[in-house]
Amino acid sequence: MARYSPSVQNLIAKLGSLPGIGGKSAQRLAFHILSMPEKEASELADAIKEAHRLNKRCSSCRNFTDSDPCPICSDPKRDRSIICVVESPRDVSTFERMHEYRGLYHVLHGVFDPSRSKGMNDITLAELFERLSKSPEVREVIMATNPTAEGNATALYVSRLLTGSGIRVSRLASGLPMGGDIEYTDDLTLASALKGRVDISS
Amino acid sequence: MARYSPSVQNLIAKLGSLPGIGGKSAQRLAFHILSMPEKEASELADAIKEAHRLNKRCSSCRNFTDSDPCPICSDPKRDRSIICVVESPRDVSTFERMHEYRGLYHVLHGVFDPSRSKGMNDITLAELFERLSKSPEVREVIMATNPTAEGNATALYVSRLLTGSGIRVSRLASGLPMGGDIEYTDDLTLASALKGRVDISS
Repeated sequence: MARYSPSVQNLIAKLGSLPGIGGKSAQRLAFHILSMPEKEASELADAIKEAHRLNKRCSSCRNFTDSDPCPICSDPKRDRSIICVVESPRDVSTFERMHEYRGLYHVLHGVFDPSRSKGMNDITLAELFERLSKSPEVREVIMATNPTAEGNATALYVSRLLTGSGIRVSRLASGLPMGGDIEYTDDLTLASALKGRVDISS
Repeated sequence: MARYSPSVQNLIAKLGSLPGIGGKSAQRLAFHILSMPEKEASELADAIKEAHRLNKRCSSCRNFTDSDPCPICSDPKRDRSIICVVESPRDVSTFERMHEYRGLYHVLHGVFDPSRSKGMNDITLAELFERLSKSPEVREVIMATNPTAEGNATALYVSRLLTGSGIRVSRLASGLPMGGDIEYTDDLTLASALKGRVDISS
């Protein structure tokens, strides 16, 4: 690490703080960026700022979008009686890629996670319940959080709060390996899990 | 990839073009960046521009530096009779970490690589020879390119061009595994390879 200039050290630190990028990778990326033509480096920096500036959370589903409501929420062809609740925007993309789901989404941006002290207010659960209270057309909520302890707990929590509301709460069927990640599931497995989803309303 | 907004697609593409970052990682990073507070995302973008703006190639050794000549080239305590020629700025950092080398460096920013059509003009070989012609104090050039086919060929090429110049050309000793990478070598192995370097002057 010796003798890097402060601006390079700063860049390495910033890159190293991104998920999945360790110290060596951060150095490699930093020097790659320094080797780029000035125009390319500048475009990378601008892409970060632009994406951040243009993309806010959809006021309905909380997915990132550059138009509000987002293209999915404002699509008149989507089935408004069903909401699929996912952990991350990438999960929405995985579902859409499958072309088998025509309902709406709700992006939690996380799950309950006591070990990382992620609680109720760090995810968009309050927004989900507010949305449900204003949407009498909703008949079912699919809790498509990952099949982990935290994902299951979050699903169960929502199911309990919706007891007596008349809204069916379901969970993706088994087929997803426990401890796995929806993002890396192949389309067939995901489709079968969606089809076989089971009731968890109590 | 469906339904990402253009600015997010652009950010994913830009991140995915960086070395070692595939499609999935690029998506993960992009959404992590969108989730950051605006200030942090902005600081990351600025760190890229700042590092790029402030760091140019040293007019002597061609390493990235924010002062010209760089701290190593301008250090009066360094041994000016010996130049260690490396492929990348990270290799300089690896040598410096070892604390056993007190000479100067020359950063090639690559090696001959016909498969990626990297030739003479893509690396700083002309600059090395120009530097040597102006530095009669240089007694030895250590070719510390990686022990790969391309690194060996580059070392041999330099050695041939310096035949009869009175400059000793050496190569790091065996100890580095063939096909390996200097950057990931532990200090002891690197120190022993430096100590046992062998003459390749013809």
